[in-house]
Amino acid sequence: MNESPPERALKAHKPGPIDPDAALARISSLIVRTPVMRSDALDAESGIELLFKCEQLQQTGSFKYRGASHAVARLPADCPGVVTHSSGNHGAALAAAARSRGFSADIVMPENAVKSKIEAVRAHGGTIHFCAPTQAAREAGLAALVAQGRVPVPPYDHDDVIAGQGTLALELMAQAPALESIVAPIGGGGLLSGITLAAARHAPQLQVIGAEPAGADDAARSLAAGRRVDQHSPNTIADGLRALIGVRNFDILARHRIEVLTVSEPQIRDAMALLWRHLKQVIEPSGAVPLAAVLANRERFQGRRIGIVLSGGNLDVDRMIQALNEA
Amino acid sequence: MNESPPERALKAHKPGPIDPDAALARISSLIVRTPVMRSDALDAESGIELLFKCEQLQQTGSFKYRGASHAVARLPADCPGVVTHSSGNHGAALAAAARSRGFSADIVMPENAVKSKIEAVRAHGGTIHFCAPTQAAREAGLAALVAQGRVPVPPYDHDDVIAGQGTLALELMAQAPALESIVAPIGGGGLLSGITLAAARHAPQLQVIGAEPAGADDAARSLAAGRRVDQHSPNTIADGLRALIGVRNFDILARHRIEVLTVSEPQIRDAMALLWRHLKQVIEPSGAVPLAAVLANRERFQGRRIGIVLSGGNLDVDRMIQALNEA
Repeated sequence: MNESPPERALKAHKPGPIDPDAALARISSLIVRTPVMRSDALDAESGIELLFKCEQLQQTGSFKYRGASHAVARLPADCPGVVTHSSGNHGAALAAAARSRGFSADIVMPENAVKSKIEAVRAHGGTIHFCAPTQAAREAGLAALVAQGRVPVPPYDHDDVIAGQGTLALELMAQAPALESIVAPIGGGGLLSGITLAAARHAPQLQVIGAEPAGADDAARSLAAGRRVDQHSPNTIADGLRALIGVRNFDILARHRIEVLTVSEPQIRDAMALLWRHLKQVIEPSGAVPLAAVLANRERFQGRRIGIVLSGGNLDVDRMIQALNEA
Repeated sequence: MNESPPERALKAHKPGPIDPDAALARISSLIVRTPVMRSDALDAESGIELLFKCEQLQQTGSFKYRGASHAVARLPADCPGVVTHSSGNHGAALAAAARSRGFSADIVMPENAVKSKIEAVRAHGGTIHFCAPTQAAREAGLAALVAQGRVPVPPYDHDDVIAGQGTLALELMAQAPALESIVAPIGGGGLLSGITLAAARHAPQLQVIGAEPAGADDAARSLAAGRRVDQHSPNTIADGLRALIGVRNFDILARHRIEVLTVSEPQIRDAMALLWRHLKQVIEPSGAVPLAAVLANRERFQGRRIGIVLSGGNLDVDRMIQALNEA
């Protein structure tokens, strides 16, 4: 007998101790309870009541600090240091979280990583190990450091990381009661699966929706197919969402029948410009994807009260300011 | 007998009813009590305790709404509409303030005004009258509308506008007690003179300091000379600070012996990038000038607790986001 994709996923998921409430109790003194912003102009323009959770104002400039600081908080005091692979925000977040407990952080980064991301890891005290920009080189780099005793803290496919990211939803639901939906970006799925678990416990009627670039739509394809696709060739300006959806993350999203909306590159740029113009917030392309998804489906959300996750604000501002100067 | 420049200015200044406290009582329900932000990274990098008053989050994206809404609040209910000349933030602020009372707003703008500023005036319901980008054309445009009965609300050389801008300092002193200095940008001088009067009443020991681009240093030259210079050829990216210092504004600043620091164009761009990177706030070049001035004089401010006015966040973000895309 055929099983529906969610049923298959439900069996595949091993219930674990992923508990955003417990995570929030552990890290609430370490993280910023980021504000929720809104804009009369954006509400009027869209016909939607939009409430923006501002993770660009989180420590290290993205939500990644929630998961990283939670994973680090769970390590024993004699931990010999942590290690991860990251070309983006998780590396800086883990470095900062490790430093706050006096641990070393080794970050394996591709040689072609963006300069501002490299600088951020260094600024937070991480030790960078460059590798070729291939899966094999990255795994070899990680394995060598794990062999030296470092504890791996992966960016999304990890129970403590997922629980940490879920703390965002607990705050948002308290700050903006009676939301009908929360829309969050999905790359590897750590944030979206954490939000899903937090909402399922506290507000089962609240709809959690993922948003991803059409140029990196592995999550949408995986959920449609009922199995995690393990290949894709991402092509999007939203560099934070290029990762392939993780195993645990897929299982949680499939089990809860989470919908993922996809958006085009021009829609991402337009949403980013709206956020900069109306909220005066520096949002990176990945962080603008949820607003892009809501505006691309504005009839559906008309008149509703929607939480939008602004996931981060890290990008190469020097180049953009240079452009201003070339007026 | 020779008089010192401040003594001459003191005699020239006719004491008027410029009262920021009364202004705040009138407009506190109309304006945003903008937050004060800070950054561990910026404090560590500079060795200064920096407290940023965030007027990019004010209505219409700049402090100009304070003065405009106060001037409009003082008009009789049967006012036949307001008029001003503006190539920048004052036009949008006056249009929005007028609309909130049901008045018309006619804004005379130079034909070469920035597209985003034109759109902002329109978005807030202002009627635009384009003129040639000359002093004569601008005065003729204004005079024609005043002849039709419109009430002029100039951008800075006006008692009610100065009092309204001074409300910023009242909020900042309450939000960030025990500041040693407040550093604010100076163009026409409405903001700096309002802050000066508010601080003089409530915190006479607090040092108020102006910051202006070296490429538009008419305020610094005027204060050094002890008389208002009435000619300059501004050349700076900080488009909000190109105006010539006003008569009332000069008198107030000279009387209180206010110091003005000047900064270079690269210092402005660097400060802007720091604000975008560390605070994640979209700040326009003019709004970055005070931080640039403090960092250019960092020995002097070392270890001190300084209020920095981020005066606005309006700029052409589309072009900057385009630059990101051309990576």
